[in-house]
Amino acid sequence: MQSDEKEIRKLIENWISASKAGDLETVLSLMTDDVVFLTPGRPPMIGKESFAAASKALSEQPFEMSAVSDIEEIQVFGDWAHMWTKLTVVVTPTKGGQTIRRAGHTLSVLKKQGGKWLLARDANMLTVAPEGE
Amino acid sequence: MQSDEKEIRKLIENWISASKAGDLETVLSLMTDDVVFLTPGRPPMIGKESFAAASKALSEQPFEMSAVSDIEEIQVFGDWAHMWTKLTVVVTPTKGGQTIRRAGHTLSVLKKQGGKWLLARDANMLTVAPEGE
Repeated sequence: MQSDEKEIRKLIENWISASKAGDLETVLSLMTDDVVFLTPGRPPMIGKESFAAASKALSEQPFEMSAVSDIEEIQVFGDWAHMWTKLTVVVTPTKGGQTIRRAGHTLSVLKKQGGKWLLARDANMLTVAPEGE
Repeated sequence: MQSDEKEIRKLIENWISASKAGDLETVLSLMTDDVVFLTPGRPPMIGKESFAAASKALSEQPFEMSAVSDIEEIQVFGDWAHMWTKLTVVVTPTKGGQTIRRAGHTLSVLKKQGGKWLLARDANMLTVAPEGE
């Protein structure tokens, strides 16, 4: 496996472990300043500051999360890459409430800035999914 | 506007006009052989042949369609590009039945092959949307 691909896989691992730990600062360090997050049925979330604000709002209701990312493809061209994955995210409110399991695909564009791979554009197509789907 | 960006905009125009006309052969000429289409709640559609089979199945029930693509961003790096759009697609069955209006965002990766831009990876996040949304 090429070094760039390894580094991108490591980025995804770091993203998931920091998200689990509620370590917003680390998650923010893994994206470009002009990052764009696209999801079905919602407006685009543009820029690192928007991600930070949304994460802080979410964290007001404490939860535990787990995530599994199966990387289906990474292609690298110099300082640019794209990737698609199959992602499952399970979120359980710690103060009671229903566990939500979401699964589906992502398509992402990544940029290498200052020698470090960062998430730049992300399409998240996860839908609520019953156990085992 | 750079020539590559113009050509990518032209690709999108051609895609929409060929789709409206039911000209599958032209639509197929606008994608790479290994194209991947990702959507919420469905398995990935991988390869030009899968797209052709799905389109033929759809065309058994005749319909009229219109589409408007607002390109929000195109970035080009040599023979690779990525793009995100706001897309609205309206489909009306010609033999009666309800008009369906879908709207949302797309994120795409494009490749230049033999001097021609082609769609290579596509995330379609459209959801059913009431008029005017």
